Amino acid sequence: MNYPKSFEELIECFKLLPGIGEKNAERLAFAILTFEQEQVDFFSDALKRVKSNIKKCEICNNLSEDKTCLICKDKSRNKEIICVVENAKNLVLFEKAKIFNGVYHVLDGLISPLNGINPEDIKINELVNRIKEEKIKEVILALNPSVEGETTSLYIKKMLEGLDVSITKIAAGIPVGADMEYLDPMTIARAMEGRKEVS
Amino acid sequence: MNYPKSFEELIECFKLLPGIGEKNAERLAFAILTFEQEQVDFFSDALKRVKSNIKKCEICNNLSEDKTCLICKDKSRNKEIICVVENAKNLVLFEKAKIFNGVYHVLDGLISPLNGINPEDIKINELVNRIKEEKIKEVILALNPSVEGETTSLYIKKMLEGLDVSITKIAAGIPVGADMEYLDPMTIARAMEGRKEVS
Repeated sequence: MNYPKSFEELIECFKLLPGIGEKNAERLAFAILTFEQEQVDFFSDALKRVKSNIKKCEICNNLSEDKTCLICKDKSRNKEIICVVENAKNLVLFEKAKIFNGVYHVLDGLISPLNGINPEDIKINELVNRIKEEKIKEVILALNPSVEGETTSLYIKKMLEGLDVSITKIAAGIPVGADMEYLDPMTIARAMEGRKEVS
Repeated sequence: MNYPKSFEELIECFKLLPGIGEKNAERLAFAILTFEQEQVDFFSDALKRVKSNIKKCEICNNLSEDKTCLICKDKSRNKEIICVVENAKNLVLFEKAKIFNGVYHVLDGLISPLNGINPEDIKINELVNRIKEEKIKEVILALNPSVEGETTSLYIKKMLEGLDVSITKIAAGIPVGADMEYLDPMTIARAMEGRKEVS
C-alpha cells in the first residue's frame, strides 16, 4: 500500500467506474484533495441521493424521482406517439435534439440471445400493454442499427401485428458532418436504400 | 434539464473532476445507478473520509493520515538520504519501482514564474531546514526534466551551497522499452551526455 488507507479506498471506488483505470483513479482521488469541503460534501451526498431517489417511471420506465417521469407528467406532450429507445441515455439524446414532442418507452436493453437477454428480460410486454390500453397512433422504433437493435425492432413489430397502430423506424444514413470516406459500406448501403426524391 | 434533479446534480459533480466531460460524466452517473447500495455508501463515505483524514506529513509533506507519514515512521528506512519529488503522486512512482530505501521530501509544485509560482510557494525552505537540522548525507533531485523541473533543481542546489551534503540528480535518457525513433532530440542529447563506460 503506497497511499494512506483512506486515499487507497477512494482510488478503489473510482476504479469501480467504467473506463477508469489505476492511473486515472489516482488522478481523480488527487483532484478530490483539492476540492473545497462543501464540494466534497455535495458530491458525497449526491451519490447517496441518486441511489435513493432515482426510480423508474411507472409508465415509460424512464429515470424519475417520482412515480411518473417529467415527460409523462408534461401535459403539453403528445401522448399518442411513443418513441421506443434502448435506455434512458438514448432518450436524452432525442430530448437534446428537440425534435420530438411525444412520449417515450425505455426498453432497458435489447434482445441479445448470445448475451442471454431474451424478450421477457426487457420492457417489451409493458410496451405492448401500453399500446393496447392507451390510445396510441404511432410507435417510433429508435434503436441502434445493430444486430440486437434490428432483432428487437423486428420482434416488437411482430408483437404489435393486428393492432391499429402505425409503426415507423428512424432513418439510417450518412450522419450530418461526416466524411463519407470514413463510413462503413453498411451505412452507405442504408443511405442508398433510404434515398428520397429531392423536393 | 433532461434528467431528474438528483441525477443532474451527480453529473455536475463528476464534471468537476479533471478530464471528465459531459458525456463521460453521464456515463459515470449511469454506472452509479447499477452499483449496490453498500458500494454507493462506501464511495460516498470514502469521499468524506479522504477530505477529513488526509493531511500532510509534518516532516516530508507526503500525504498522511497521521502527523508523520508511513515512510517517515518506518524505522527500516535510511533517513540520511532524501529524494526530492514534485508531488505525492511522483513519490508513489518511486515507491512502486522499489529501488529506493531513503526518505522523501514533497515540494508540492515546481518553480514557475510564468504561472506565478515562486520558490516560497513550494516547500523548499522546509527542505533546506531539514537538511540543516537532520543528519543528511545525500539529496537526490528527482524532478521532471522540464524547464520548471530544471529551474527548481538549480534553485535547490544553490540554496544548499556550503552545506555538507552530496546533491545528485536522477538520470535523464532513453526510457526502457522505448523506440528511439520516436524520442525527441533533447532526450537523445541527454542520453548521450549521460553515457557511461560499459563495465
